[in-house]
Amino acid sequence: MASLQTTAVNDMQEALADVSESLERMMEQLLPQPEGVSSNIISLKDRNASAERSPVGGEAKVMEAMRYSTLGGGKRLRPFLVVNSACLFGVSREASLMTASAIEFIHTYSLIHDDLPAMDNDDLRRGKPSCHKAFGEAAAILAGDALQALAFQVLADPSVHPDAAVRCELVTAVAKAASCRGLVGGQMLDLEAENKELSVDEIIRLQRLKTGELFAISCEAGAILGKGAQPLRLALRRYANDMGLAFQITDDLLDAEGTREEAGKAVMKDSERGKATLVQALGIERAREQAQILARQAIRHLDVFDKKAGHLRTLAEYVVTRRS
Amino acid sequence: MASLQTTAVNDMQEALADVSESLERMMEQLLPQPEGVSSNIISLKDRNASAERSPVGGEAKVMEAMRYSTLGGGKRLRPFLVVNSACLFGVSREASLMTASAIEFIHTYSLIHDDLPAMDNDDLRRGKPSCHKAFGEAAAILAGDALQALAFQVLADPSVHPDAAVRCELVTAVAKAASCRGLVGGQMLDLEAENKELSVDEIIRLQRLKTGELFAISCEAGAILGKGAQPLRLALRRYANDMGLAFQITDDLLDAEGTREEAGKAVMKDSERGKATLVQALGIERAREQAQILARQAIRHLDVFDKKAGHLRTLAEYVVTRRS
Repeated sequence: MASLQTTAVNDMQEALADVSESLERMMEQLLPQPEGVSSNIISLKDRNASAERSPVGGEAKVMEAMRYSTLGGGKRLRPFLVVNSACLFGVSREASLMTASAIEFIHTYSLIHDDLPAMDNDDLRRGKPSCHKAFGEAAAILAGDALQALAFQVLADPSVHPDAAVRCELVTAVAKAASCRGLVGGQMLDLEAENKELSVDEIIRLQRLKTGELFAISCEAGAILGKGAQPLRLALRRYANDMGLAFQITDDLLDAEGTREEAGKAVMKDSERGKATLVQALGIERAREQAQILARQAIRHLDVFDKKAGHLRTLAEYVVTRRS
Repeated sequence: MASLQTTAVNDMQEALADVSESLERMMEQLLPQPEGVSSNIISLKDRNASAERSPVGGEAKVMEAMRYSTLGGGKRLRPFLVVNSACLFGVSREASLMTASAIEFIHTYSLIHDDLPAMDNDDLRRGKPSCHKAFGEAAAILAGDALQALAFQVLADPSVHPDAAVRCELVTAVAKAASCRGLVGGQMLDLEAENKELSVDEIIRLQRLKTGELFAISCEAGAILGKGAQPLRLALRRYANDMGLAFQITDDLLDAEGTREEAGKAVMKDSERGKATLVQALGIERAREQAQILARQAIRHLDVFDKKAGHLRTLAEYVVTRRS
């Protein structure tokens, strides 16, 4: 696969930016507003005015932490997948953006918890202090917890789909992707795997749990919303699996080569920490080849959609050619 | 209100034990089984046998931590409320036990996270080392996260109710109760309130968020499952609010008096930590009176159910007379 034409890269970046902007507005609406909450707490009728007291703004603090970590940053790859898979089935923009927001809330909560000192202990995220650095550990733990609850509240909302069975299917699929057999299991595996030698299969399995399951439901969500036939759902899951792994290998390559241009994320982090990556297991050249093979394979899964899945196709090429 | 007859206390304890046993079996089925998971991970085909390597059992560890904290302990008050409110509407035992399990998963996850060093820093829970003491902080954070996801997965399961709209309603109501305007907001308020002087209203508000919302949805869940009319749902919410607060005051009284017989939970903990309680704000005698008034008020809300809500009535008396 030759590297992408400059025009294709530009188109892709424009398409990503477009989803990001719409997503930002939707998440802004769905996230709780801290304004007014703390003032509620201060002005209670039998407040003892003589006692020295500062306002107790617990809820407002959690809400601010939720907004801080969710808004204004991130590649928004998962939302892009939701929106573009939903497009294949003629799903309304509002429904797909709500679903995309819910999945992004799950992703963000996992990043907040992953950054905690007891986990990966990262001080920076998306170019700014990580949630616990900005709000303290307790608020970060709780903001993550509240984001997870909010994700399911959004998915069960009638505006997502008039058919409640479809909403339940989304709740089930996202809950499974976020479960101890998905995202959470992958995070634990990742921590346990530090400084251990993992086989290629083990690393693939780890990645599939840690990032693959959420990629897969992001693609499948469109088919669920559009009541797509089973073979189409399966094709999207397969696309997601291959594209997700290609994305992860490229991430590891950028990390290993220390060429990541993006500010706000440390490079050479994984190897210093003794994290097993496919780049380490295969070497840079074979890993790069593997990413290309996976991207091509991902695109072939989209053949069932004929010409329709243009953005998803370009994305698979884009993730392996990006420089940040 | 005279203290409960010994026979009534015995009946209540028997009824609680009965729900506990059925719940335990249901949760045992719903929780993931760690067996077989780690062996999956060890026996991978291209494993380099010569390299020194220990099996990476990440998912199994999270699953064990989930089971450790959920099974074999706790008063199971919330499940008792679900089962007995569901009884009022002729809901099947399986549906009510599944719903009760989901709510107990939420409750357990909040206890696991609340016990973390960055939060309340408790080493003991239900008479045994708290989750992070037994499995480490990372596994405890992740086990809590996975329990929350599991709760919503269970609520969206068709076995809970044939009507998906009912399941969505449960997901919505539980997500709200667990949100930053419910449980999570209450936990943050509680942490922020340490060593601050709170008014009676502020303490009531804190308790309503921290424990009241989950009590309320536990009672309302039965009405949702049974498609109960709005006035009946409201009556159950009001019962839960008053009963929950009476329960909390009694908890604080037992803590302040240091008479808690139950092993495995430290007494005099709240005042040492500078936590605001109604006992502190009102004094022991007025707090005790208040608990009795609330219990009576809770029972009056059940008048709409005529004779049917026997267990819920007795529970309200029981929570203020218990000694542990």
